[in-house]
Amino acid sequence: MENTALKVLFHRRSVRQYTDEKVERKLLDTVLKAGTYAPTGGGRQQIKIVAVQAEEDVAEIKRLNAAVTARQGDPYYGAGTIVLILAYPENHNADLDGAAVCTNMLNAADALGLGACWINRSREVFAGEGGKDLLRKWGLRDDLVGVASFALGYIKGEYPEPAPRREDYITVIS
Amino acid sequence: MENTALKVLFHRRSVRQYTDEKVERKLLDTVLKAGTYAPTGGGRQQIKIVAVQAEEDVAEIKRLNAAVTARQGDPYYGAGTIVLILAYPENHNADLDGAAVCTNMLNAADALGLGACWINRSREVFAGEGGKDLLRKWGLRDDLVGVASFALGYIKGEYPEPAPRREDYITVIS
Repeated sequence: MENTALKVLFHRRSVRQYTDEKVERKLLDTVLKAGTYAPTGGGRQQIKIVAVQAEEDVAEIKRLNAAVTARQGDPYYGAGTIVLILAYPENHNADLDGAAVCTNMLNAADALGLGACWINRSREVFAGEGGKDLLRKWGLRDDLVGVASFALGYIKGEYPEPAPRREDYITVIS
Repeated sequence: MENTALKVLFHRRSVRQYTDEKVERKLLDTVLKAGTYAPTGGGRQQIKIVAVQAEEDVAEIKRLNAAVTARQGDPYYGAGTIVLILAYPENHNADLDGAAVCTNMLNAADALGLGACWINRSREVFAGEGGKDLLRKWGLRDDLVGVASFALGYIKGEYPEPAPRREDYITVIS
């Protein structure tokens, strides 16, 4: 694995412990930009990325996300930055596009030494009035569809080891 | 952009012209392995990757994919290798997982100097009897769900330029 460009694709893990430090704007901007270079269906780019660092709004996203499954605690593991991946309602490839955009940003975070963790339940959050209130507060269309989100921050503690990969993940028909 | 690990995330493009050469097995294996390190919901890895280089089967996938939209020509742009990303039917996060796995492999292809292009309509192909016949022929479960696929090959001609990114792709709430 001498290929540095490849390495990040194998190195990225879900990080679930963050320091209190807010992610520096320059690093954040690079992560977000990497998302915009992900493939989208027909190259249509019908995805909206929203990075949230405003404390009040971060707290509200956490509250709304936790409420989907009535879970206790912070579903974003204490991270001070949340990145939302939303799709325009006219996007018929929303989940695939949004996941590609999310994956590119997770890899970019790793490449920059940041920690990130994909968090689901954005669809439910932004289908509800609480999520739509946030979109309106931010001056965005309130019919954006939640596809994915992730926690972003500086890693606290050890970088996680990878879980074993399933034995039958790959088949080659040659 | 001095960070090599980052560079691939910005460099990858959809490649639509391939040489006739079959992708070397060692390179193929690295691309596929990168897919297995993509994030999946709960780390459950309920995804199956099938790389197809057998000429007869490659031709059949192309025929079935083209038939979905009754299009003429080869939807995989003449590529000799097709990689399929399928989900186990019990995977409730199939599209997001599959897209993440696909995105990692597209980036790996770029990092190795290969060309790739994400091709949709796998859901329809493997929901039909033609697709299920292939799965059975390969000794796989015929209830696997098609999520994504891509053409893979050596790049013919110039590497494509990126299309402009949409101006309003990103919003930061700080």
